[in-house]
Amino acid sequence: MLIECIPNVSEGRRPEVVSAIADAIRRAPGVRLLDWSSDASHNRSVFTLAGDAPGLEQAIMGLFEQAVAQIDLRTHSGEHPRLGAVDVVPFVPIEGATMADCVALARKVGAEIARRFDVPVFLYEEAASDPARRNLEDIRRGEFEGLAAKMATPAWAPDFGPASPHPSAGASVVGARMPLIAYNINLATDRLDVAKKIAAAIRHSSGGYRFVKAMGVALADRGIVQVSMNLTNFEKTPIFRVFETVKREAAAHGVAILESEIVGLVPSAALNRAAEFYLQLEGFKPDQVLEHKLRQAGP
Amino acid sequence: MLIECIPNVSEGRRPEVVSAIADAIRRAPGVRLLDWSSDASHNRSVFTLAGDAPGLEQAIMGLFEQAVAQIDLRTHSGEHPRLGAVDVVPFVPIEGATMADCVALARKVGAEIARRFDVPVFLYEEAASDPARRNLEDIRRGEFEGLAAKMATPAWAPDFGPASPHPSAGASVVGARMPLIAYNINLATDRLDVAKKIAAAIRHSSGGYRFVKAMGVALADRGIVQVSMNLTNFEKTPIFRVFETVKREAAAHGVAILESEIVGLVPSAALNRAAEFYLQLEGFKPDQVLEHKLRQAGP
Repeated sequence: MLIECIPNVSEGRRPEVVSAIADAIRRAPGVRLLDWSSDASHNRSVFTLAGDAPGLEQAIMGLFEQAVAQIDLRTHSGEHPRLGAVDVVPFVPIEGATMADCVALARKVGAEIARRFDVPVFLYEEAASDPARRNLEDIRRGEFEGLAAKMATPAWAPDFGPASPHPSAGASVVGARMPLIAYNINLATDRLDVAKKIAAAIRHSSGGYRFVKAMGVALADRGIVQVSMNLTNFEKTPIFRVFETVKREAAAHGVAILESEIVGLVPSAALNRAAEFYLQLEGFKPDQVLEHKLRQAGP
Repeated sequence: MLIECIPNVSEGRRPEVVSAIADAIRRAPGVRLLDWSSDASHNRSVFTLAGDAPGLEQAIMGLFEQAVAQIDLRTHSGEHPRLGAVDVVPFVPIEGATMADCVALARKVGAEIARRFDVPVFLYEEAASDPARRNLEDIRRGEFEGLAAKMATPAWAPDFGPASPHPSAGASVVGARMPLIAYNINLATDRLDVAKKIAAAIRHSSGGYRFVKAMGVALADRGIVQVSMNLTNFEKTPIFRVFETVKREAAAHGVAILESEIVGLVPSAALNRAAEFYLQLEGFKPDQVLEHKLRQAGP
């Protein structure tokens, strides 16, 4: 079972602190630190790790140990909104893992964080205990500075841990979600109004697909426009359906698709579903993919 | 680096011999035996293994040790044509391995087989030393029974080893090739002539794509027909191009595609190329696939 975890930590300016956290992650057995980056203006670092449930739990405990000891939100500033020293910890199902596995892991890790570090924990997205807590933005509204007042209201009692913020480490948001896919479609036109209309047609917030966030932007240097998207659940709103809808909407404006692009990582299953759709593949199973079969068999 | 190897051995009736060969393969470090099956009427067994070059070399040596000791072609009978106790050993590039790696491994293993077992070796497909030796069927024509006479002609001197067959083990054919994809397209009609015409249009032997073998067959129980194919090089003749050509040819007969199917295993890259094509993905790189990145990183 393989789960991805992308903890966001409120420290992006002191490399020695970020390195100590990376080292703590690397010490967890069976966990691989795939990537990490810091942003000084956000004063925030994002780590990408993968492993099985016990390994990830150990990695996140090591991360908290460092972060709670070394980060003080009372003196922290940065452009990015944040609630705690360890701000957000999402678990994402990758291979042989289900969303239920990730929800269970989020609850177990959340409870353990509260117990060991006395930091209140809110569960979010698929792990949320209440629909009002699904969206990270709603939990984080008011930030660290407003957290004590927010938690004093009954609606914002934490899922685990003390009823008020940790003095220096605030609170943490732990949960489970599908992998995000950053997906852009470039149109063979410089008409920004067309990109904006298409973005409005496909995004959830204005009546489009449930798991699409989209905006129209100009790529001035290339003289073209782009529909820039985040696909937040490729199983329920697949890439190919979004692509075909954008293509049809563009055609109604007399515009063709120039190309599309995936920014960063994409799960193999998201691409396989596109191949299945267009090739009209019937009865295709993931273990027919040679590399998938190889991983099942070994090492 | 991951290479697949699919040795074919001329023994399909004595389970104890087949098991001894499987055990010899499993003893090679870092090699995984993914699958094996025996056919009694063919009197032949096919093993599918994967590993790095040194592991596979050791596995094939172990396989030869068992097969040469226990199989005597002078008393062997079966429906499938064969030249030796170990009949064919193809190496196939999978992940992080190139065709050049597989050709080099075929040559190294071929030379070692000749040296250790005194079995003459012919190199075939991408490893062939001469275009006349690319096709397995040409090398194998005449079979074990005609091999001594064939090898007596200058054109059929082996690439490695003695100038005449091993008395009991014959000769072996070792080489490198792309993975095969068994791919079928079902048509929404019972007109077998349409399936046969489309098969003729797309297969290499009658003027079609270079790496397609195809025939039209009736699926009588379903009342439909099928274009049944082997795609022998998905990089040079990709699945999506074959699918689109079949779709266009079928439309000219007023026939639609009902569905397609992949039988058995398919390399991840073959599906990714279909997704890239249909989604018009620009600049997509294999290490953007999350699972690929995970394998690069660890364990």
